[in-house]
Amino acid sequence: MRYPTEDLPPLVAQGSWTTVAGTRVGVAGGAIKSRDCKDVAVLVAPGITAGVITISTAAAAPCHYTRKLLPGYATAVVVNSGNANASTGEQGVSDTRQMAFRAAQVLNVPPAQVLVCSTGVIGQPLPMDRLLPAIGRAASDLSADGTDAAQAIMTTDTFAKEAACTVGAVTVGGISKGSGMIHPNMATMLGFLSTDVKVAPNPLQELISEIADSTFNAITVDGDMSTNDCLIIQSTGQGVEAEPGTPAWDDLVSATYTVCRHLAREIARDGEGAEHLIECVVEGLPTEHARRVARDVLRSPLVKTAIHGRDANWGRIVGALGAVGVGDLDRLDLDMAGIPVLRRGCPVAVDEDAATEALSAAEVQIHIRLPGEGVGRAWGCDLSAGYVRINADYRS
Amino acid sequence: MRYPTEDLPPLVAQGSWTTVAGTRVGVAGGAIKSRDCKDVAVLVAPGITAGVITISTAAAAPCHYTRKLLPGYATAVVVNSGNANASTGEQGVSDTRQMAFRAAQVLNVPPAQVLVCSTGVIGQPLPMDRLLPAIGRAASDLSADGTDAAQAIMTTDTFAKEAACTVGAVTVGGISKGSGMIHPNMATMLGFLSTDVKVAPNPLQELISEIADSTFNAITVDGDMSTNDCLIIQSTGQGVEAEPGTPAWDDLVSATYTVCRHLAREIARDGEGAEHLIECVVEGLPTEHARRVARDVLRSPLVKTAIHGRDANWGRIVGALGAVGVGDLDRLDLDMAGIPVLRRGCPVAVDEDAATEALSAAEVQIHIRLPGEGVGRAWGCDLSAGYVRINADYRS
Repeated sequence: MRYPTEDLPPLVAQGSWTTVAGTRVGVAGGAIKSRDCKDVAVLVAPGITAGVITISTAAAAPCHYTRKLLPGYATAVVVNSGNANASTGEQGVSDTRQMAFRAAQVLNVPPAQVLVCSTGVIGQPLPMDRLLPAIGRAASDLSADGTDAAQAIMTTDTFAKEAACTVGAVTVGGISKGSGMIHPNMATMLGFLSTDVKVAPNPLQELISEIADSTFNAITVDGDMSTNDCLIIQSTGQGVEAEPGTPAWDDLVSATYTVCRHLAREIARDGEGAEHLIECVVEGLPTEHARRVARDVLRSPLVKTAIHGRDANWGRIVGALGAVGVGDLDRLDLDMAGIPVLRRGCPVAVDEDAATEALSAAEVQIHIRLPGEGVGRAWGCDLSAGYVRINADYRS
Repeated sequence: MRYPTEDLPPLVAQGSWTTVAGTRVGVAGGAIKSRDCKDVAVLVAPGITAGVITISTAAAAPCHYTRKLLPGYATAVVVNSGNANASTGEQGVSDTRQMAFRAAQVLNVPPAQVLVCSTGVIGQPLPMDRLLPAIGRAASDLSADGTDAAQAIMTTDTFAKEAACTVGAVTVGGISKGSGMIHPNMATMLGFLSTDVKVAPNPLQELISEIADSTFNAITVDGDMSTNDCLIIQSTGQGVEAEPGTPAWDDLVSATYTVCRHLAREIARDGEGAEHLIECVVEGLPTEHARRVARDVLRSPLVKTAIHGRDANWGRIVGALGAVGVGDLDRLDLDMAGIPVLRRGCPVAVDEDAATEALSAAEVQIHIRLPGEGVGRAWGCDLSAGYVRINADYRS
């Protein structure tokens, strides 16, 4: 599956999950996250649906439930924030089923057409007495305002994450959430995509699996894979037919990659306590290896704190590359924030003031070049005292 | 190789590397770390010597140099702190050789009998004009004060780490340093051991490799493996003969394990910015797997920040176990700081005030029990704003 990783098509202004025609969302407050905010969303886009779910062996009840229904025909996804419904035993399994049932009842569809996702605190039973009525209200008051849904799925996020992209006749929209416990494997915390194409289940599943690997699975905030990662794509089937090998398929791939990459980067940018989005590009290794190395570099607390300190301390990056077994380091070219710091493994004289200024940018690139073919990229963020504060107090 | 992991033999009061008869150390200041402190040490114990060195592909010049000489007969180890001599190219290789030559000259032994270790900042050339005279002074002014050497090898450490243990007729002494970039593989930042036994090179090498795995390689501060990890054991041969299968060998194993475990725990306790030493015990998995899982749990920033916040947020531990693929989590028993929080995967009602008090201790244990045989343990520390501060400013 080929798609451009540079010169991406433009995003739709103010685009969101609901930019795709025929999609609707409902939100409501169940007093799960806090008393006054919306924390339940129902995303309605009847059609072929695919997705990727966390591979954590501690995966939450809704992950197991939803995985069984993918890929296939679905009408809606019901999502709550504030409680992950993870480590909740048999009760959690039954609560998940009830969430789907309540949404299905209101939407008047079979329960097996409703997927469920949860995010929030681990190990506490869902407050079903408040949650089920909220699902009922959300499912019965649908609109085209995707931003409402993007806000309802937030936990420690500081801003809503949404995007849409149109390529040719194909539109893809999306929202995501995530800020901590971000080191996804098969998907990230929560991502929801919509598209208007008419598509078969298996190609849609392959598309989302592959694009997850190069976008949501290429970000890291703290190296902690979550119990609740889910990325789901719903297609309405109201637009053009997209079959692998056709131009419409290529447009779908391109639009999906563009939206996923934007949403994934926004998650890294909004990493708990983060002040910088860091992009790491690794050239000279086969794509998957390059991507893994890029993510490993961004996982290093010493690299993250150096960037936080606006310090061109390239030794931290070399240390991280050595720790993950990258060879040929005597031929390494390394740039930080556009400033050459190593050429063929040897230090380049750096104007430290200029480096500090370049590293003060909101987005910082680490560019690693080794002798060889292939390129991979990943995104992460700096490590600040704010991260410690947020997580030392997470439950209180 | 069997040794007790509980009810360890007692440490010698005020014990150090020099507790072993016939060992001597010299220290001097080379103005590498800062202007006024001692940053060069020469550890003299002529005899069979073995060791384990970092497997980082960015390993520093002294690591490559020293690895080639082990196991074998050595007279001394020369160590400097403040500069790692890593990523320094051909110059670093030549500087390492000169360090050995200068010490050998003063000690009047062949250069190949002197090992070299460095620790500190990566990527800067050693100030040889100051370093070589300092080595000369250190090597010509030897004493039996191991604490001097333990202090001279410190970088961001807040206290010197030293220990000794006598079992039967065998004595083992040691010093170590390390505080950040701690996630060793084959050894930790720097550890030096001495013993009086008469022993052959290969058994000594096997002993130190195996004990490194269960002690120094079982600690983590920040998940960052260093470019300069070294653990070296020197034997004077002045004491009893220790051959595998003899009671003296068992005494050597027991004393070495006890000293290494103590020094490794002290490194974790002194983790940059740390307020708690955390011990993670995993029961119910084969030893090596259990040890790896224990270390993975302690690597999780979310587990570390929860302990920092004195919060019995066991969901973070379950999340970490899930992320590393541990099964049978519905049969998990989990205690935090002696307080039961999960039994057979189900939450136990926790008195949060009592939990906060228990988690305020200087040492906190995470005890994980799964159905199965085997046990492994690892040590780490909490993640604080202090860690961020230290590393955002490391070079300045």
